[in-house]
Amino acid sequence: MPLVRISLMKGKPADFGKQVGNIVYRTMVDKINVPAKDNFQIITEHDPARLIYDSEYLDIRRTDEMIFIQITLNEGWTVEMKKALYKTVAERLHQELGVRMEDVLINLVEVRKENWSFGNGIAQYAP
Amino acid sequence: MPLVRISLMKGKPADFGKQVGNIVYRTMVDKINVPAKDNFQIITEHDPARLIYDSEYLDIRRTDEMIFIQITLNEGWTVEMKKALYKTVAERLHQELGVRMEDVLINLVEVRKENWSFGNGIAQYAP
Amino acid sequence: MPLVRISLMKGKPADFGKQVGNIVYRTMVDKINVPAKDNFQIITEHDPARLIYDSEYLDIRRTDEMIFIQITLNEGWTVEMKKALYKTVAERLHQELGVRMEDVLINLVEVRKENWSFGNGIAQYAP
Repeated sequence: MPLVRISLMKGKPADFGKQVGNIVYRTMVDKINVPAKDNFQIITEHDPARLIYDSEYLDIRRTDEMIFIQITLNEGWTVEMKKALYKTVAERLHQELGVRMEDVLINLVEVRKENWSFGNGIAQYAP
Repeated sequence: MPLVRISLMKGKPADFGKQVGNIVYRTMVDKINVPAKDNFQIITEHDPARLIYDSEYLDIRRTDEMIFIQITLNEGWTVEMKKALYKTVAERLHQELGVRMEDVLINLVEVRKENWSFGNGIAQYAP
Repeated sequence: MPLVRISLMKGKPADFGKQVGNIVYRTMVDKINVPAKDNFQIITEHDPARLIYDSEYLDIRRTDEMIFIQITLNEGWTVEMKKALYKTVAERLHQELGVRMEDVLINLVEVRKENWSFGNGIAQYAP
């Protein structure tokens, strides 16, 4: 169900985006009960003039290593679950890939259960 | 009103994405009462390492021919209308372009009527 | 907080997208109380076959100079504030960059305050 869009600067190793995506996927399974195998992502790379960030908003020092993660998913997660998701995604990106935690931006867009078709033209989650 | 994002693997014929988009547009007109000419789409192509999907989630066998369709549109459609949209988009993609129905992922993101300006800086749909 | 996606045709000067984004950012600060420095954007360029628009929907004459602006932001703005945002973005794009006002499409996607992490894995806006 989550559809994840990951936007990175150009110039990282070929499979870096995929590794980032795998951490996002695993953490959604662990922290917000996303089902196993529910993994759909679009990863794009951009040059610095086209991936714009403020380098000190909220007193967080960001760099060109910025990663933008926008996740469209069903509504219904608690604030505590969302917080656990953000924290663990950032920690794992840091621990496993050396990403600075300051450089991780995450945004959630919530939709209804009937707003998905995962193939065959069927609304698999509809009530 | 709908803003449609279509994401495909690289390597299809030049106008394939546009044909996919045209089917999505026509089906929105037919099944969810989108006005004629209300056709705005962003089509992108990606290499396989950057368009991630699970090849068996929900027991649906997906291939690298996967098409991701994310539609931002006004709220207010019934579940039945959404189901008709998914079904007919997948059927037409199969019948007209030979796309496997298993390879069609559709997601809807709903917004309010006043959340659009279609030109001239005016909120044409605002109450 | 706003995450802005700007989609343009290919072939504009190198910093054109960034100038468009700067106008969108400044206008959000002026018209909908977005905090200073809260500036995060993803700018992409597309060839004409992949950025689809109707050239006369709602009797507005659009051209290949079309700019698609999709803004994900917190909910809570009034209709009047949204109207002021659309109007001033389109006017400034015209006055400062010579963009035709007919060629500016804007869409807002609203989310909850707790749906953001701006770094360090923390939900900075959560209640």
